Amino acid sequence: MGLRNIKLTISYDGVNYSGWQKQRGKRTIQGELERAISELTGFITKVNGASRTDAGVSALGQVANISIDSPIPTGNFAKAINGRLPRDISVTEAAEVDETFDSSGSAKSKLYRYTFFIGKKPNILQTRNCWHRPGVLDIEAMNAASKVLIGTHDFKSFAAAADKRNNSIRRVMQCQVTQEGKWIYIDIEADRFLYNMVRNIVGTLVEIGRGRWKAEKIKEILEEKKRTAAGPIAPPEGLCLVWIKY
Amino acid sequence: MGLRNIKLTISYDGVNYSGWQKQRGKRTIQGELERAISELTGFITKVNGASRTDAGVSALGQVANISIDSPIPTGNFAKAINGRLPRDISVTEAAEVDETFDSSGSAKSKLYRYTFFIGKKPNILQTRNCWHRPGVLDIEAMNAASKVLIGTHDFKSFAAAADKRNNSIRRVMQCQVTQEGKWIYIDIEADRFLYNMVRNIVGTLVEIGRGRWKAEKIKEILEEKKRTAAGPIAPPEGLCLVWIKY
Repeated sequence: MGLRNIKLTISYDGVNYSGWQKQRGKRTIQGELERAISELTGFITKVNGASRTDAGVSALGQVANISIDSPIPTGNFAKAINGRLPRDISVTEAAEVDETFDSSGSAKSKLYRYTFFIGKKPNILQTRNCWHRPGVLDIEAMNAASKVLIGTHDFKSFAAAADKRNNSIRRVMQCQVTQEGKWIYIDIEADRFLYNMVRNIVGTLVEIGRGRWKAEKIKEILEEKKRTAAGPIAPPEGLCLVWIKY
Repeated sequence: MGLRNIKLTISYDGVNYSGWQKQRGKRTIQGELERAISELTGFITKVNGASRTDAGVSALGQVANISIDSPIPTGNFAKAINGRLPRDISVTEAAEVDETFDSSGSAKSKLYRYTFFIGKKPNILQTRNCWHRPGVLDIEAMNAASKVLIGTHDFKSFAAAADKRNNSIRRVMQCQVTQEGKWIYIDIEADRFLYNMVRNIVGTLVEIGRGRWKAEKIKEILEEKKRTAAGPIAPPEGLCLVWIKY
């Protein structure tokens, strides 16, 4: 057979997990996938994910790739793995790809959605994966600020202080805030993301939405290039990796 | 102060719990509520629930009552308890009621909703609390059968064999099947329910919906008055206690 490179598209509800990355003694998405694959194929293989989502963060379209020499047909792969995964993780697609495909390095852009519920009483079956934040937000002001973020900028002010990468220049293709009744969504597409970038942008847009800052402030924050200039980080449960483009 | 009788309305996502009823060494809804209330008030009190929902079953409007002599104002009670509850259990309302009020005995009727997702690919953030059952179901046939169940009947065929109550006569006020895209809902209101009654009715309606049985068969099943006459039990995750009327 030889090694085959398999691209997996994965959904998960991250609320009960300590994030994507495998950690000793903790339930993680990568850990569960590697266990399921080794049970299924008899091979221990690294599941190479495109995004190391944090504890509590969910995904509809996370992408990972694995190298295996199992003869299992790709068409059966998703179903076979899902039978060995907990209910809140699911492989939605498996496809054999070129050996050069790398889920992280080959990605062209990713879209994250952040969801708020602003009603008073959360419906527990619908508000599990959102930030329950009762109160009015000024969507127009938030959208005005969002537009400033579109384009190629140094997003250092929105990166976790722990993010030590030298290059914090990223290209944001879309950034918009929409409201449907008591639900608010912030969608951000970028070529790559800095650590905590979406949650820090969301937390900053909320400061604008609740009137602490004017929309114009976002330009200053970008220019300051330090984390302390921006707003507080938004909680992880509202965040979802929706898709990755290759 | 004297003892006050407090009515609590409670929502929960039951997927990660071993049901309502307190059990040693297991995570249960009642157990979590009693722990939270004793932490809050310093009193150990029984949380008397209207419905002992099974493991995996959720609720939007479970009702319980507690007798406490804590001076805590009713208006603050829900918020104070919620601060001590896990994210997937929430007290949505607390009200002081007459000492004769009993969440179970005073109930006039309850509505349960059972949810299916019939699409091929489940969206893991929306299909957590449902039965993922890809494939076509004949909603018209299911509704024709549902109508036969409305009224006062002996529902012995739909009670768990373990349900040893002598009287299995119940009054069903509504029973209907609706479809919205890839979602199907079965709503059943009754004065009281036998153990596993909703899930056994749902499993039987599915046998009709998938064409194994004709709609007319439901009358025979009712008349046989034995569990083996009806269809298999539907999985718990799709079931939700929506409201209780008093």
